[in-house]
Amino acid sequence: MEMISAISAAVISLLSVLLGIYLFKWVSKHPVGSDRIREIGEAIREGANAFLRKEYTILMFFSIAICALLAIFLGLSSAIAFIVGAISSAIAGLLGMKVALKANVRTATAADKEGLSKAFLIAFRGGSVMGLLVVGLALAGVSLIYAITLKPEILLSFSFGASILSLFAKAGGGIFTKTADISADLVGKVEIGIPEDDPRNPAVIADNVGDNVGDVAGMGADLFDSYVASIVAAMVLGQTLGVKMVVLPLILASVGIVSSVVGIFSVRVRREKNPGRALDFGTYITSAVFALTTLVISLIMSYDLKYWGAAMAGLVAGTVIGFTTDYFTSIDRRFVKKTAQASQSGAAITILTGYSYGLMSLLPSLAGIGVASGVAFALCGVFGIAISAVSMLAIVGMVISSDAYGPIVDNAKGISEQSGLSEEVISMTDKLDAAGNTSKAITKGFAIGAAGLTVIALLATYQERVAAITGFTITFDLMNPLVMLGLLIGICVPALFSAMIMLGVSKNAFRMIAEIRRQFKEIKGLSEGTAKPNYARCVEIATTGALKELMLPSLIAIGITLLVAFIGGIHALGGFLGGAILSGLFNALLMSNSGGMWDNSKKFIEDGAFGGKGSDAHKAAVIGDTVGDPFKDTAGPSLNTLITVISLVASLISPLVILYAVFK
Amino acid sequence: MEMISAISAAVISLLSVLLGIYLFKWVSKHPVGSDRIREIGEAIREGANAFLRKEYTILMFFSIAICALLAIFLGLSSAIAFIVGAISSAIAGLLGMKVALKANVRTATAADKEGLSKAFLIAFRGGSVMGLLVVGLALAGVSLIYAITLKPEILLSFSFGASILSLFAKAGGGIFTKTADISADLVGKVEIGIPEDDPRNPAVIADNVGDNVGDVAGMGADLFDSYVASIVAAMVLGQTLGVKMVVLPLILASVGIVSSVVGIFSVRVRREKNPGRALDFGTYITSAVFALTTLVISLIMSYDLKYWGAAMAGLVAGTVIGFTTDYFTSIDRRFVKKTAQASQSGAAITILTGYSYGLMSLLPSLAGIGVASGVAFALCGVFGIAISAVSMLAIVGMVISSDAYGPIVDNAKGISEQSGLSEEVISMTDKLDAAGNTSKAITKGFAIGAAGLTVIALLATYQERVAAITGFTITFDLMNPLVMLGLLIGICVPALFSAMIMLGVSKNAFRMIAEIRRQFKEIKGLSEGTAKPNYARCVEIATTGALKELMLPSLIAIGITLLVAFIGGIHALGGFLGGAILSGLFNALLMSNSGGMWDNSKKFIEDGAFGGKGSDAHKAAVIGDTVGDPFKDTAGPSLNTLITVISLVASLISPLVILYAVFK
Repeated sequence: MEMISAISAAVISLLSVLLGIYLFKWVSKHPVGSDRIREIGEAIREGANAFLRKEYTILMFFSIAICALLAIFLGLSSAIAFIVGAISSAIAGLLGMKVALKANVRTATAADKEGLSKAFLIAFRGGSVMGLLVVGLALAGVSLIYAITLKPEILLSFSFGASILSLFAKAGGGIFTKTADISADLVGKVEIGIPEDDPRNPAVIADNVGDNVGDVAGMGADLFDSYVASIVAAMVLGQTLGVKMVVLPLILASVGIVSSVVGIFSVRVRREKNPGRALDFGTYITSAVFALTTLVISLIMSYDLKYWGAAMAGLVAGTVIGFTTDYFTSIDRRFVKKTAQASQSGAAITILTGYSYGLMSLLPSLAGIGVASGVAFALCGVFGIAISAVSMLAIVGMVISSDAYGPIVDNAKGISEQSGLSEEVISMTDKLDAAGNTSKAITKGFAIGAAGLTVIALLATYQERVAAITGFTITFDLMNPLVMLGLLIGICVPALFSAMIMLGVSKNAFRMIAEIRRQFKEIKGLSEGTAKPNYARCVEIATTGALKELMLPSLIAIGITLLVAFIGGIHALGGFLGGAILSGLFNALLMSNSGGMWDNSKKFIEDGAFGGKGSDAHKAAVIGDTVGDPFKDTAGPSLNTLITVISLVASLISPLVILYAVFK
Repeated sequence: MEMISAISAAVISLLSVLLGIYLFKWVSKHPVGSDRIREIGEAIREGANAFLRKEYTILMFFSIAICALLAIFLGLSSAIAFIVGAISSAIAGLLGMKVALKANVRTATAADKEGLSKAFLIAFRGGSVMGLLVVGLALAGVSLIYAITLKPEILLSFSFGASILSLFAKAGGGIFTKTADISADLVGKVEIGIPEDDPRNPAVIADNVGDNVGDVAGMGADLFDSYVASIVAAMVLGQTLGVKMVVLPLILASVGIVSSVVGIFSVRVRREKNPGRALDFGTYITSAVFALTTLVISLIMSYDLKYWGAAMAGLVAGTVIGFTTDYFTSIDRRFVKKTAQASQSGAAITILTGYSYGLMSLLPSLAGIGVASGVAFALCGVFGIAISAVSMLAIVGMVISSDAYGPIVDNAKGISEQSGLSEEVISMTDKLDAAGNTSKAITKGFAIGAAGLTVIALLATYQERVAAITGFTITFDLMNPLVMLGLLIGICVPALFSAMIMLGVSKNAFRMIAEIRRQFKEIKGLSEGTAKPNYARCVEIATTGALKELMLPSLIAIGITLLVAFIGGIHALGGFLGGAILSGLFNALLMSNSGGMWDNSKKFIEDGAFGGKGSDAHKAAVIGDTVGDPFKDTAGPSLNTLITVISLVASLISPLVILYAVFK
């Protein structure tokens, strides 16, 4: 039974990979319009490749170091699983980005030559390549390693590899993209006075690269990481607790992939020409197919229906969190409009209002995670929590597809503008772009919610592993002072990490600003448009800086984890994990939602409200948006990954902590 | 033994009250200079009285409602204790403010006629009245109620009364002061173009009143509340756990009062004319006397020295947190300077930098609280945590004295400017004012740290009470899904509360802005200075609005507590308390420290750095400061009180929750 499930999961996931490759070819065979489009696309591609080359080189050295540590302390198979995890996630990210960079120019071309429906389909299927590859490669890795070793704990190392890659891709990409964004704006728009996305700006390509690096590759790696972590947590818990259904997570994930494929191929812009509704429809179809198929399988196989209940708790929670995020950050809702209105009283009131609404947005999402985990627990214990996390993430193939659609059409819009396509085409790409916003907001909420359930499951995994090794039941009582000390330190670590990342963006932006100013000064004819800027140099600065600013906070976060573990012992480490989870979710949601609100309230004013572009309200809203940028695109979304990494480190080192900690 | 300690505590505390009244008279007998000074002082006094009258009226109805509930569910003695607690704190606040309003004009006069030393002494002793009355009335209430009933649990209601008053005084005062501040600036400085503190501005008196209402009465009520709560938590824990030293908290508090008196009377500006050093000296003397006297008493009475150790853990933690706050927010340190430097790149970077440093400032303080409670626990169990909280707060008589000095000299400075005293006098009051900043920063950190240890002790109190009633040991295991649900909801409540309070400031400011504009339009000759504005109307609007904006968030916070308790049961309530404590401390520190940083970085620029007043950097710093104002003076400091209120509610209702909750 175990073997059959693992092998069918492997087969389904490999089919998913093949389907991804097929769509990759399908996108590639579409034509690229003018030479100008080709040229811009080429520059973005070069920049993105430069970033990835550098990132993967540094990552390689880093990974070899971790690999060596794992090999020494936990054995060779752990080290190998770690590397396979990192590489699988890297491949998914790499191919996903490659296709995004093909799809953007082809979407612009199709909008010009063939109309909305075709342009939409190219963009969406471009995104689907990432979706299918992420779930395919992730599940293939998990199921093959399990089929070979039949030891779920080896999978912890596989998951750890994916997490470390995700930390680099998400946080590093986040620093990169905001560095480029802020400095391109500050020098280009403010100092020199040229429009946004003007090809004379040396940072413009870095800015375009950033969207792909942060939003495509970063989000893909983030969800790869959560997806794997949830499956692994469930399998390790299942084995440690002696649940018969150890392979249930593999079955759920397999059904999720099939459902996503059904969803992906049902997405099409129909007569009403509404791309947003098409994306939503895909998600509904996927969820419905998933819910029904799992129910039917449960009935046929006579599984206890409580497992299905736990799975549905996760699916419902994911939806609630997604809609909360949309409600708080959508341009059509009251919170965004009120924030925009507050901009009339200046930047300070804009900041205070958006921040306050961000604080208010936490309760429904966090209560949703709490209730889902409570229901799942009531049905099938801690294993149920893990199952609900797996189910929430099972449909991630579809979720990523509509999310990656966003940056592709965003890029297509920029390319249409830069290559001088007609007004009609630009407004069509605008319509395509607007449709991406809701799915983007929902995905962010979804990613945080899924990470929440996953890390709660990982906390349980840690607890059960410790119990299994020591032979004692272990509780993390709030009133145990070591647990409380752990909690108090734990809530500080995501704060410290996000602070250092945000300061890193500023520092890095200063370096890049100096370079942009230098080019405008030293390259003759640049301002007049007769000479070309050195795009590659800006990309290089953003890349090197981003990776540099990422290293210290990552090492500090892992260092504090090890300190707490080996001084405070297993109880302090349990409290620390709990604190990091609570604070991580709190700050991730706060930053994402406030940032989203400021972004959209600026757009709302630009659409003509409260005086429109150039008004005082607009100036205030721009300041809000600039504060929100590193909030929502750098610090906030990195926190998911950070808490997953910390949780996996805790589970991995638990055998050593039990032996060597100062306090036992 | 119990009786003797309680009665000596009562005697010492009544002596403290008498000494406070003596200093009240001492301050009052000093002369008030010109009629102009008298007139301004009169207007501020009227406004402050108007606020307090209104506040106490609303509070009375609110208290009667709570009283009735307490009488029905917990018995008459609880209801009486509640009212005594609220009234004692109200009297301390009322008299403390009355003397502050006498001391401010007399300090200005003394600066004019008698020089720095005398002016300093009047201001400091004015602050000491509040210090002595707070500790005197608080300890008198606790020790007398205990001497009469010998039942520590009745004291929970006394403490609850003080907390509810503190919530109104601190949060209501905080909304009041920022409403006045923001609207006076927005209309006066920005729209009409008159200087700050100009008597033509209808909101100028409300602004002066706000400093007293928020910083004097509010801070006094806040520390009254924490002081009482720590003593009560220790006594209830001592009794529930069967510790022999139930009255130890009373002994520590008595020694603390004596030490504070020694400290207060040793404060004097000596030859070097450094008021800041004089204040610091008083705190050192008090701490040293406290540490030595408690050691000597422990040795004489042959108490186990572990109690003394726990007491010192609290004292040391208080100092660490105070200095961390100072380090992060002092105008002489790197973080403030770097934030000021960031202002050169605009408002957004100012906000991001200050916020990031605020996030970084959490770790030392929270780790300090964690280590102190850990050490205290290791020495004498949960009772030790409560003892360390009591000791940290024992010297609060001295702490309040130097803190209340701040707004007095701030007011004296404003009065000197408004009544046209000489440049030399103004610069003298400036020097006095600058000395208050460090103690103010330290007090804020101190107040949060003390609240932290106190609420951890209150969590223990809740746990032990539940255990005592049910007869079972109870643990709040992080992996119990009800505890986790409680934690997840708990961390949202301080966020929701502070968000609503901050939005309340904006709403209230809009009402007041409308009134100021109306006065400038309708009162002929106001802009020219030939007619007088209607100060009282502005005070009334700020008052009514502040109390209105406070009610909803307070009711929601208490309502959620009751919901979690009666649906989720004792485990969910325990988790909820834990979550509220963690999030309360996190956000209180973050907001206080970021706010302090923005405030001082603006001052740093105004002192001439990065282009000085009027430069672009200054404009950006002003936006940072305006964001920081409600952070540090409204939302941040209210959170201490909020979490104390929630914790006391939990302990009070625990017998009912055990009986009636949906989940047991």
